[in-house]
Amino acid sequence: MTRNNWSVPETEVLQRVHERLEGDGADVLATIVDVEGNAYRRPGAKMLLDEAGEGVGAITAGCLEDDLLAAAESVREHGQPELLTYDLMDDEDDVWGLGVGCNGIIDVLLEPLTETYRPAIEAFADGRDVAVLTVLEGGDGPLSRGDRVYYHPEDGELTTPDGEPATAWPETLAAPAASLAERGRADIVELTEQGQDLEVFIDGLAAPTELVVFGSGHDVGPVTELAAKNDFRVTVVGFRGSVDLEERFPDADETLTTSPAAVDDDLTLDERTYAVVMTHNFIDDRLTVEQLLDSSAAYIGLMGPHDRFEKMLTEFDEEGRTFDEEALSSLYTPIGLDLGGGSPYQIAHSIVAEVLAVSNDRAPQHLKAREGHIHDRITVDSPTQ
Amino acid sequence: MTRNNWSVPETEVLQRVHERLEGDGADVLATIVDVEGNAYRRPGAKMLLDEAGEGVGAITAGCLEDDLLAAAESVREHGQPELLTYDLMDDEDDVWGLGVGCNGIIDVLLEPLTETYRPAIEAFADGRDVAVLTVLEGGDGPLSRGDRVYYHPEDGELTTPDGEPATAWPETLAAPAASLAERGRADIVELTEQGQDLEVFIDGLAAPTELVVFGSGHDVGPVTELAAKNDFRVTVVGFRGSVDLEERFPDADETLTTSPAAVDDDLTLDERTYAVVMTHNFIDDRLTVEQLLDSSAAYIGLMGPHDRFEKMLTEFDEEGRTFDEEALSSLYTPIGLDLGGGSPYQIAHSIVAEVLAVSNDRAPQHLKAREGHIHDRITVDSPTQ
Repeated sequence: MTRNNWSVPETEVLQRVHERLEGDGADVLATIVDVEGNAYRRPGAKMLLDEAGEGVGAITAGCLEDDLLAAAESVREHGQPELLTYDLMDDEDDVWGLGVGCNGIIDVLLEPLTETYRPAIEAFADGRDVAVLTVLEGGDGPLSRGDRVYYHPEDGELTTPDGEPATAWPETLAAPAASLAERGRADIVELTEQGQDLEVFIDGLAAPTELVVFGSGHDVGPVTELAAKNDFRVTVVGFRGSVDLEERFPDADETLTTSPAAVDDDLTLDERTYAVVMTHNFIDDRLTVEQLLDSSAAYIGLMGPHDRFEKMLTEFDEEGRTFDEEALSSLYTPIGLDLGGGSPYQIAHSIVAEVLAVSNDRAPQHLKAREGHIHDRITVDSPTQ
Repeated sequence: MTRNNWSVPETEVLQRVHERLEGDGADVLATIVDVEGNAYRRPGAKMLLDEAGEGVGAITAGCLEDDLLAAAESVREHGQPELLTYDLMDDEDDVWGLGVGCNGIIDVLLEPLTETYRPAIEAFADGRDVAVLTVLEGGDGPLSRGDRVYYHPEDGELTTPDGEPATAWPETLAAPAASLAERGRADIVELTEQGQDLEVFIDGLAAPTELVVFGSGHDVGPVTELAAKNDFRVTVVGFRGSVDLEERFPDADETLTTSPAAVDDDLTLDERTYAVVMTHNFIDDRLTVEQLLDSSAAYIGLMGPHDRFEKMLTEFDEEGRTFDEEALSSLYTPIGLDLGGGSPYQIAHSIVAEVLAVSNDRAPQHLKAREGHIHDRITVDSPTQ
């Protein structure tokens, strides 16, 4: 397998799934559905394996490659989903052996990639949250392993891949599905339906966080590049049209040329917006920041020293514009975490680190200073009868 | 200019200088020597401009491209160094103008790239710190703009580009040069020598920070890639030889296959070592961590949860091995900053962010929470008579 495909941003795995759905291949989708102890990835992590043994995505750091390929071949042959458990707890007696040990026990669902996955891909492409519900164990009931329905937040109910109401499924799954879709997390829900024990894997695919970068200088490139690797959907907004944004910023998902005063007309700015303001022009920055503060954006990172923003506030004040504490609390200036770097990539690294932390509601301390599991366990109330 | 060349890691600018020194071109080196107010880059930031107008490196975010190209052409023609001042303070009356404003006033030294720069490049290639001293103003004295000597920490004195003692230069410059070389910072020193006012730009080029990554899984790739972009010199160390490290990790500057017990034989581990331990094998990690703790490494990042390291400490204890507080304070586990991400690139981003912060002796808080200038001013005692 080529190196490029093993460790790619999650968005690329889903893009690859999209491409392969359009083709004639017989790909196998492998998804971690459960983790015990500590593993490299969380539930929901995916890999796509094709017939040639090429993989995109990473479920483990490398321990299971051969096992997964063999399992995928088996699934491809009989066409049925399989649920496999890999116990990767360190074998300490195996000091002189292959030393293949990783951490933890992981359960992996392998299934042929079929049209039943299309609604997930379409939601992703449209920037909509969605939850993918897949039966792991159906007991003796009407549902069997691999059966699938969806929860689209805009519908508020479970629907089949064809878009029909999912009448064979318990409605009580809608609530955990909604929660997981919003948070982009995955979990197993166990419930008893009509005397049958049902185990359903709910995979919440949250639409990528939108990052809007205002500016067109060469320092925008590294920010865009690193943000894309971190699974943000990046829009670069330039003013005055003197720069070919698409050519200069190939990592951007979207580019837009507009005027500073028209930012809130041409863009959707709301509480889900993460914005980096780096036009290097005081007037343009000020106009942009004003509209972002008005939009209740989740994060507004402003490049420059703090007194530059103080000057903006003074001018706002003179114009009779004031902003409340909540709006101002989303304004970060000087932008970025204090990592000490000064080169373009180091600056970009600190900016993207800050946006990541804020979007995940984390204080950017050393993990060493935190307690508990790295991947904090999510709690989903299993619907009980 | 192609996008790739404007925003590159600093190490790539120096590598490009090395390549161009070997060729026949007439390149111009542009270096920021002073900054007033707030500018995008610090003193020492460089760009290399060739005859075709292609540039590598970024001095500004884009404000000065045309100016710099024209100035470089002029320098190329008359072959003499020039010192130019660009006042980029925002012109607030120019609201409807080109809006070219950036922040700050920068002084830029432009000079033809000549053999006088070779000792800088050789030191960089060898992994040695070095300070490049260049005359900005010589007054009526024997030194003129562009004259250059070096400070190599291993020599402890000023030497000409040919390696001879720099007898025409004030010895008092050695002390600030030593300090700046160690810290990789740049500053102007003004002094009066034999009644002549001398202004010297001292550019400290610290050898890139060495990052050693232990592991060969697919999660090592993103760590190596992001570290390289942040100007670390990356060595990947794999155990057992089953993986072609060079092929899998093309971003690594060096790769090494060895056995876990031989780490301190095959590598130089000391107080300048920054290490990431991520073999996913408990025994291998433990052996590696033990040797790193013994070496007084500056940073030891260990992947996995805290109780995994607690287990190592228990085993060390049972074997009668103890480590003092100072050694243990350099051990970071779980590794990385708490940014909340779980994908391979997000994990790598948090790891590299932590290493950056520790190597620059910063607490990884939001810059918003800090006071003062982003690029903290360095203080160098100007030698006075």
